[in-house]
Amino acid sequence: MTDLTVRTGQHAEFVDITAQVQRAVTESGVKQGVCCVFVPHTTCGITINENADPDVTADIIAALERAVPWVAPQYRHNEGNSAAHVKASLMGNSVQVLVRDGQLRLGTWQVIYLCEFDGPRTRKVWVLVNG
Amino acid sequence: MTDLTVRTGQHAEFVDITAQVQRAVTESGVKQGVCCVFVPHTTCGITINENADPDVTADIIAALERAVPWVAPQYRHNEGNSAAHVKASLMGNSVQVLVRDGQLRLGTWQVIYLCEFDGPRTRKVWVLVNG
Amino acid sequence: MTDLTVRTGQHAEFVDITAQVQRAVTESGVKQGVCCVFVPHTTCGITINENADPDVTADIIAALERAVPWVAPQYRHNEGNSAAHVKASLMGNSVQVLVRDGQLRLGTWQVIYLCEFDGPRTRKVWVLVNG
Repeated sequence: MTDLTVRTGQHAEFVDITAQVQRAVTESGVKQGVCCVFVPHTTCGITINENADPDVTADIIAALERAVPWVAPQYRHNEGNSAAHVKASLMGNSVQVLVRDGQLRLGTWQVIYLCEFDGPRTRKVWVLVNG
Repeated sequence: MTDLTVRTGQHAEFVDITAQVQRAVTESGVKQGVCCVFVPHTTCGITINENADPDVTADIIAALERAVPWVAPQYRHNEGNSAAHVKASLMGNSVQVLVRDGQLRLGTWQVIYLCEFDGPRTRKVWVLVNG
Repeated sequence: MTDLTVRTGQHAEFVDITAQVQRAVTESGVKQGVCCVFVPHTTCGITINENADPDVTADIIAALERAVPWVAPQYRHNEGNSAAHVKASLMGNSVQVLVRDGQLRLGTWQVIYLCEFDGPRTRKVWVLVNG
């Protein structure tokens, strides 16, 4: 089990953590299996999406904000970050990635993103590779 | 593999099932691995989020209802619960949690929620710990 | 690890791939464990939902389109398919299903759907069963 640290710099931001996760896979020594990448937070999530064009993650953030606005009359949680909790659950708090020959097996355009919805903060990511 | 039963009491409600899942992990005897918690239904989901303030889950339910209203002109499914099917897929029907020293390894504020979207009902939850 | 190919026929469409995944589970020879079904794309996702009434998936597609419209003023990605990227992350790019006696253990109404959001295309699905 490897614990990673990710520093986010914006209020809402997708941070590519693929290289850090690959390092954890390499250190695990597992050649074939499933890598579970888990975020132990409730206002950030994790997802896999495209990194070729940075507009894609900007558009995902904008579309999530349109669907779940930061300010809405129905929110009661007094910390004021209810939207971040919702978006975290929409993205999910873990991804599973197959491992082959000791490498994360991702599609051509795929990377693993930590999805910050209430930053900037220092976030933890836990990685376990089941061989 | 352990089968749990969860009784929900509201039409839409998040029920904290962490203690029941921990019991299944303890009974499995697995000390390190990944716990898969699977919901075999199509109108409830499962997620991990905060339980310190009950307003958080109330706000998640309200935000999901805003994004995917119970009544909408485009629904055709004659059972009238299409929104519950959508929300179930938005939350997802399984969560994976790391296990260390025989304990679910969750973040400080995290608990596992069964997400009822078409209750009240009796729901099943299946747990498998891969060591 | 088994690689499946799925041909989608519509721009937005849910394709039931349960039988193909079950074949991969059978070929793996694993009797008990967790099956990870992974989509290596960024404009299609994967989910588990009902297949008894085809209106259910039509309603899910319509509700996602309502929440995340194909055309919106905030999108900047020049391929014009930002909504497909968002929906892919909302559904997720993997599902985990328990395996018992060599069979996918699904609820009565559950099937595994590849969720096409930018088709028609030929899609890949990767399956690994951890025993």
